[in-house]
Amino acid sequence: MNLSNLGEKKLIERLRRQLAQGGSRAGLVVDIGDDTAAFRVPGAEKLTLFTCDMLVEGTHFRRAWFNRPEPGENSAERLGWKALAVNVSDIAAMGGRPTFALISIALPGDIEAEYVDKIYAGLLKCAQEYGVIIAGGDTVGSPQGMVMDVSLLGEVEEKKLLRRSGARVGDLIAVTGPLGAAGGGLQIIEKTGGLCEARPQPQNPSYETSVEEALPPYVDSLVAALLEPKPRLAEGQALAATGRITAMMDLSDGLADDLPRLCQESKTGAIIHMEKIPVNPACEKAGLEALKLALQGGEDYELLFTFAPQNLAAITAALNAAGAPPPQIIGEMTSANEGIRLINPDGTTAELPEGFKHFGI
Amino acid sequence: MNLSNLGEKKLIERLRRQLAQGGSRAGLVVDIGDDTAAFRVPGAEKLTLFTCDMLVEGTHFRRAWFNRPEPGENSAERLGWKALAVNVSDIAAMGGRPTFALISIALPGDIEAEYVDKIYAGLLKCAQEYGVIIAGGDTVGSPQGMVMDVSLLGEVEEKKLLRRSGARVGDLIAVTGPLGAAGGGLQIIEKTGGLCEARPQPQNPSYETSVEEALPPYVDSLVAALLEPKPRLAEGQALAATGRITAMMDLSDGLADDLPRLCQESKTGAIIHMEKIPVNPACEKAGLEALKLALQGGEDYELLFTFAPQNLAAITAALNAAGAPPPQIIGEMTSANEGIRLINPDGTTAELPEGFKHFGI
Repeated sequence: MNLSNLGEKKLIERLRRQLAQGGSRAGLVVDIGDDTAAFRVPGAEKLTLFTCDMLVEGTHFRRAWFNRPEPGENSAERLGWKALAVNVSDIAAMGGRPTFALISIALPGDIEAEYVDKIYAGLLKCAQEYGVIIAGGDTVGSPQGMVMDVSLLGEVEEKKLLRRSGARVGDLIAVTGPLGAAGGGLQIIEKTGGLCEARPQPQNPSYETSVEEALPPYVDSLVAALLEPKPRLAEGQALAATGRITAMMDLSDGLADDLPRLCQESKTGAIIHMEKIPVNPACEKAGLEALKLALQGGEDYELLFTFAPQNLAAITAALNAAGAPPPQIIGEMTSANEGIRLINPDGTTAELPEGFKHFGI
Repeated sequence: MNLSNLGEKKLIERLRRQLAQGGSRAGLVVDIGDDTAAFRVPGAEKLTLFTCDMLVEGTHFRRAWFNRPEPGENSAERLGWKALAVNVSDIAAMGGRPTFALISIALPGDIEAEYVDKIYAGLLKCAQEYGVIIAGGDTVGSPQGMVMDVSLLGEVEEKKLLRRSGARVGDLIAVTGPLGAAGGGLQIIEKTGGLCEARPQPQNPSYETSVEEALPPYVDSLVAALLEPKPRLAEGQALAATGRITAMMDLSDGLADDLPRLCQESKTGAIIHMEKIPVNPACEKAGLEALKLALQGGEDYELLFTFAPQNLAAITAALNAAGAPPPQIIGEMTSANEGIRLINPDGTTAELPEGFKHFGI
């Protein structure tokens, strides 16, 4: 069976089984199936976290998104930013602090060196923002598209480590902020011919006439959410420090894809109240299907977490102290045999839609 | 300037300068420009090593190399083996021991799931051979070719750490074994239409008639050197344990490319005696340009190292105790202003040829 038919989830489950049969995994505190791996280094005060994320041109991005007519500070820099930021988000999801990164990049020979400089400028900007040291990498040629793979280490006190597997029946389910902005940004950027910002470009008169009125400046925030995601590192650490979070992960593939993973690892079901899902106001203003994007859009990099109801005040206070909004509660954990149910405002139950498919393209 | 014109070496130098200007690198014991990065984890007994290597279809391998007419135990498994082995070699070059790996892989949708299973079987085989735990990774779709990027951690006692930068004028230059086999394997595999082993295949009569006589079974060793490299992990650790090695690196791009890197980091020149370069006997038997392959072929993953002449006996004994052949001495370190000179048997000087070019393809 080829991968398009098998699908990504089944492939990963298959590989995970294969690796599990491949001998001792004794050193691992957190194994495959969480946002990062975690292990003890002999003598070290903290656990080491280890994660990687690969961005493939044509699967995760198009070069045109970063090729504005006049190269500006927000062009290819954003690609570098994003490649590192999505990894920082994985460290945030464990309650950790990122430390060292390696950058592997496969580059077609026709790319300009200045373009690569911009990618690295974006990587550095993100590294400085989140306290990462870029310690090296691998730079190779590609006969086809561009590929970036960042591997990132982090650290966390063992008692603060947050996993996907600790949620309990009755826990509240919350997110750190509105969902769907990145998915909205994707729809806009694909509609506008890959232009990085939804503003009229004199070089593209058809765009100017057709889109100028339809896309007011606030949609920039949606495109920025897609191209320059802001990992919730301070929030993740603040939540971990409370000692009251039972499970956490980052929302990279959309709530509809990610919540089942958290439930699977925690061996629970879940009820989600549709009207409580915080949709992005800019999606609504842009006339996009805000709720659908919040469920399926992916790449929001907000944190999804669970906790016992009596801890709400402490958690709200911790987020407040970190300068973050209060938790947005969207549902409750139920027993595994109840599955995952979406409850409409009228009390009817909706089915969980499917998220983004990698091998479908 | 595009990357084809700039070239890989200049691009990497440029990126290295850019990163160096990007803020504190205080945590790093070994920075960019060595086989791995190295840093201290607070409280840990040993240094942590961190490296990655990306293999791109069409740049580093062709899928046809692993598509034998009858899929056997040595087909796609070798791709998985190689992706991890080249990283183990980097850890070996620091005198270290590998620990945890992550596997990022971009897969076209038309690949069969069984093919991916084989890749993972090869990864696991290599992991078990060298004591690595595969702790996770990222599996994504690719609209074009396959890409694998392995990131690998390791550990080494700080006093045993070997770098590229410690060689001194007067040191002997040695390698752990004959060079050129992988380059020879590449020539053979490209000549024989990508068949993984140089044996007659009934499905391919033209190959059978044209190549059967020309390629006796011993060329299998050359193809295996390319597709299943054996990193010199025991040798690297034995050399590091002597405390008498001044600089070390692995030979991934060929002596002609790699020796200048070691000289640059050590701020030395070098004399290489051409007749002392250990060429691969199978290359000679196969009628290939054995010396040229030894200098330029690349991907041999033997170790290149330097030491003071009075330590030869101790180093030979250490390699012997590790079950390895004695050091093959190929030259001496000189002062930087003498550059790198290749001395022919007749005493004339030859120019250093150039190695493999990534962005040239």
